[in-house]
Amino acid sequence: MASFFPASFEELIDSFASLPGIGRKSAQRLAFHILSLPLEDAEKFAQSVLKARRNVHTCPVCQNLTDRELCPVCSSAGRDKTVICVVSEPRDVVSIERSREYRGLYHVLHGALSPMNHIGPDDLRIRELLQRVADGGVEEVIMATNPDTEGDATAMYISRLLQPFGVKVTRLGFGVPVGSNLEYADDATMLKALEGRREM
Amino acid sequence: MASFFPASFEELIDSFASLPGIGRKSAQRLAFHILSLPLEDAEKFAQSVLKARRNVHTCPVCQNLTDRELCPVCSSAGRDKTVICVVSEPRDVVSIERSREYRGLYHVLHGALSPMNHIGPDDLRIRELLQRVADGGVEEVIMATNPDTEGDATAMYISRLLQPFGVKVTRLGFGVPVGSNLEYADDATMLKALEGRREM
Repeated sequence: MASFFPASFEELIDSFASLPGIGRKSAQRLAFHILSLPLEDAEKFAQSVLKARRNVHTCPVCQNLTDRELCPVCSSAGRDKTVICVVSEPRDVVSIERSREYRGLYHVLHGALSPMNHIGPDDLRIRELLQRVADGGVEEVIMATNPDTEGDATAMYISRLLQPFGVKVTRLGFGVPVGSNLEYADDATMLKALEGRREM
Repeated sequence: MASFFPASFEELIDSFASLPGIGRKSAQRLAFHILSLPLEDAEKFAQSVLKARRNVHTCPVCQNLTDRELCPVCSSAGRDKTVICVVSEPRDVVSIERSREYRGLYHVLHGALSPMNHIGPDDLRIRELLQRVADGGVEEVIMATNPDTEGDATAMYISRLLQPFGVKVTRLGFGVPVGSNLEYADDATMLKALEGRREM
């Protein structure tokens, strides 16, 4: 069926509709919103997309997102470099930092093992973690992957790989409701989970 | 509270969160999606925003959105130039074109009278409509504003302004469910509404 919107407007609708969780009708409303913006604001929006995509990369140490050479946590003098907290996603770092309890470093895996979705060890930043532990100075690794099947399997898998290094490996403790998603944990739950961590 | 995402990533989240109907969590997911895109695709997304905002303007005749000098309907030789269908929004033109019944021209008001929201006659493209009718050649004006309070009031207001010109003024007919929104009318309903239009 022919469209009756201008081509560049249709393309904008297509762009929005290609984003996850945005349907055709929502995409149309967003596109109309863009047209209604002052040119300056539309340009600012487009620039923020380009700037984020171009500047943001992963920290070469902890693999978290950053727009500097090293991320703020890795480059901070005040963090305890003997502890590494392993999480699946950058947003999990935000959840843990919010508890203001944790002073160690992080390691972001960028996913969790999932045979169903063909995500194996080589798809995660596991090798980089092993290298950090092999380099020495690490005394404890806290596995803070999500408390679900995939997160548990990932934690088990990595803890076995870490055994030869003789570091203490713990799992994020009681408090995080099972089957949930770390991203939605409230501050108090996250605090309890950190306090109640246990050796695995 | 301090953020732990890079600044340009936070800015991208802010950009998405500034769009209507997109909350903070959704904005974060969209921003992560942008980072996961190949650079080329992220650039294409940003370009589509700029291109649409820069190229799309309103047709000087019917006020519909277009990226050409005149919109395709106004510049088409095959349309009946004696009939003008008056709608609130560009998306309503799409709904009516979809019925494949209507062969006349359009006039897009870009809104409806709404004293509650401080939208008066001067905020709509009413003057441009009166000018078109004054220029002659128009025999019928179909008021196809939404069948709700504001749409009805707008139709009534404009029909009174058109009286001195002696053109036939009709209202989009039975078929469109009262209290609904034209945008969501199905093709069959829109067809019935066009067939059943009555003089007002």
